[in-house]
Amino acid sequence: MRYSKYFIPTLKENPGEAQVVSHRLMLRAGMISQLSAGIYNWLPLGLKVLQKVSEIVRDELNKASAIEILMPTLQPVELWQESGRYDAYGAEMLRIKDRNNREYAYGPTAEEVVTDIFRKNIRSYKDMPKNLYNIQWKFRDETRPRFGLMRGREFLMKDAYSFDVDYEAAKKSYYRMFTAYLNIFERMGLKTIPMQADTGPIGGNLSHEFIVLAETGESQVYCHKDFLKTDAPQGVDFDSDLLPIYEKWTSLYAATDEVCKEEDIKKEDIITARGIEVGQVFYLGKKYSEKLKAEVLNDKGQPVTVEMGCYGIGVSRVVPAIIEASHDEHGIIWPESVAPFKAVVINLNQGVSETDKVSEEIYQKLLNAKVDVLYDDRNERAGVKFKDNDLIGIPYQIIVGKKGLENGGVVEFKTRKTGEKETLSVEEALNKIIGK
Amino acid sequence: MRYSKYFIPTLKENPGEAQVVSHRLMLRAGMISQLSAGIYNWLPLGLKVLQKVSEIVRDELNKASAIEILMPTLQPVELWQESGRYDAYGAEMLRIKDRNNREYAYGPTAEEVVTDIFRKNIRSYKDMPKNLYNIQWKFRDETRPRFGLMRGREFLMKDAYSFDVDYEAAKKSYYRMFTAYLNIFERMGLKTIPMQADTGPIGGNLSHEFIVLAETGESQVYCHKDFLKTDAPQGVDFDSDLLPIYEKWTSLYAATDEVCKEEDIKKEDIITARGIEVGQVFYLGKKYSEKLKAEVLNDKGQPVTVEMGCYGIGVSRVVPAIIEASHDEHGIIWPESVAPFKAVVINLNQGVSETDKVSEEIYQKLLNAKVDVLYDDRNERAGVKFKDNDLIGIPYQIIVGKKGLENGGVVEFKTRKTGEKETLSVEEALNKIIGK
Repeated sequence: MRYSKYFIPTLKENPGEAQVVSHRLMLRAGMISQLSAGIYNWLPLGLKVLQKVSEIVRDELNKASAIEILMPTLQPVELWQESGRYDAYGAEMLRIKDRNNREYAYGPTAEEVVTDIFRKNIRSYKDMPKNLYNIQWKFRDETRPRFGLMRGREFLMKDAYSFDVDYEAAKKSYYRMFTAYLNIFERMGLKTIPMQADTGPIGGNLSHEFIVLAETGESQVYCHKDFLKTDAPQGVDFDSDLLPIYEKWTSLYAATDEVCKEEDIKKEDIITARGIEVGQVFYLGKKYSEKLKAEVLNDKGQPVTVEMGCYGIGVSRVVPAIIEASHDEHGIIWPESVAPFKAVVINLNQGVSETDKVSEEIYQKLLNAKVDVLYDDRNERAGVKFKDNDLIGIPYQIIVGKKGLENGGVVEFKTRKTGEKETLSVEEALNKIIGK
Repeated sequence: MRYSKYFIPTLKENPGEAQVVSHRLMLRAGMISQLSAGIYNWLPLGLKVLQKVSEIVRDELNKASAIEILMPTLQPVELWQESGRYDAYGAEMLRIKDRNNREYAYGPTAEEVVTDIFRKNIRSYKDMPKNLYNIQWKFRDETRPRFGLMRGREFLMKDAYSFDVDYEAAKKSYYRMFTAYLNIFERMGLKTIPMQADTGPIGGNLSHEFIVLAETGESQVYCHKDFLKTDAPQGVDFDSDLLPIYEKWTSLYAATDEVCKEEDIKKEDIITARGIEVGQVFYLGKKYSEKLKAEVLNDKGQPVTVEMGCYGIGVSRVVPAIIEASHDEHGIIWPESVAPFKAVVINLNQGVSETDKVSEEIYQKLLNAKVDVLYDDRNERAGVKFKDNDLIGIPYQIIVGKKGLENGGVVEFKTRKTGEKETLSVEEALNKIIGK
């Protein structure tokens, strides 16, 4: 992509309304723009990251045998009346009347709709377990939308729902999603810790929040220091017994401010950190299936009410969470897996035939090698280009200048994360990107 | 994907509510299910097609230098008041009040929002032309939602908007989209003809509807018979002059029932057909840019109001349109480019060790070759399997049965479109799929 033909409206000044670093940087990097309170346009750079994050979520869930569907944004309220949540959900649920005065909700979540799909189509234990998920826009009418996408109103959520014939099977579904989540966040370059969460009236301990550690995080969290050196499991077989992985990740202490006990967080080896919730896994039991009468025949031919679990990831919230966890005073530092582009070619002397020629060659070679690459071909001063490119945070910069080309035909290779600069031949610079 | 673990809830009976063939087949093939009037769940098979259609649209628009963004579903009504359409749009626009009594519209289209993005960010002719598009859910509160997704209320639309500094440039943007549309529909295996459409108060002739020819189409259309042998241009350079392509495709007569004149359709070589509108390109002039004051400085440093065009494709409508154009009495016949799976392996004797072994081997080899393949491993009778697989319309079937394996280790290779069956060795059958 040529920068001059693209659309990255960066801002020089810090926008006044942005109170947190991710909101500030997303606005400044031209990733989003506000349309209304808690409602944002995704500009090209932001959308590319959102799509890469979605693709990782999709890919890892599919590996864990979850099946993608898509439920509409508008839901008939009759289903919410059936589940008993029509009144309980309160003003956060946006209620809408159509031209025939029929009432709908802009889905804040989809337990009712997915249970309705299940009960209408699945009748036997033989067709289970089933885990249906979708990545769809949701709306929650927050009293005070703030912090940009961190607490927006229209937001993109991945919500998965498992259906099992009994509690033992439901636990296995829970472990599968728990394990998939470890992989999902690791692939995004995030240090994420599952923390025991409140299970409310459902009871038990099958509820975990996945918390990204970030110095600028919204809430205080506590965890055993060994979590910092625990890596997500590799190459998991999702048909195997995942209890050992679950136990490994839940045997150490980890809790948010809301649920921690004072005696626990004072213990040795417990560290205090800041965190951002990006996902939650939750065993629901028969809460919805009983109300909506989602029953199947078990292996004895008897009707049983199914066991459910729900599993959310705030996809549009993950984007600012990554920025909170990975930035410096110059701007964003994208982990490679979610970066809008892997590399940028910066032409310092646009209009000078030799730098144009070499920059163009590098750009074309990277395109031919299927590298997602940006070419900064703008008629701008070097200072502006350095600043903008550090701000938007593409992992690798190949900087082409007249001086280097005259002095042995070299270019500069800069790694955004470390700031490290190397003087390399064009060939060496290309290999650094293509070889990766 | 293993059929037994997947979720394809096919129906044996024709659903009573479905009046058109695409609606009937989408319900029967378990692609969608109705949630409410004009509002549908996309089940796995339907969603896969929707995603493949979206990906073709995205890919071809990117080639034509359009830039993807994403605008929210909810739009503040102030922008609609500014454009003068708040009252004009009428009851088809779903209007919503949030908890603070602020009014929003569920976007039926996005001219206002995209013009707002443009005017806030682009100030100079140097940053033009620009064409911004998004693929996003829209809502139109139809009086009588019907024909399934053909006339739904919540629907997925690709809407692109071009911005140019003058009329000459705007025409070029129009030709680019016109040409991209020819490629988009051709890639989906559709015979699509651009037909002159009404330009209303804007005048001129820069408005075309793209009509898919299908015997079961909703409207009567007329076109020169040479259109049937005209193919979309190949390998177009979108930076070149596209006027010749535009002229080639508009020099022959083509018109819908609404705009045709009786003397024209009586001429020689004009054929009568049925069609379905799947896209429209429309030159807007300054209709929105004047009202919303979208101005840039031209090359003389003078402020000019920008010229716009809008370009829609009903992405969720294309799916049933493809079915209308490509089906038989047994079910859907997917063109390969949009098929939910490219091939299906049908095990006729599930549970018999030899057919299980061979079927599994074929399935694994296709997976390893990155073929999107379904494996029908259900414990069902051959008749049920044949029926379901013809219904869901995957292009190629490899049928593995005990008898064939005993008689020289052969399988059957069936092409869904022609019904042609060949008896082949496993190796030959695999090569037919992988070689393609």
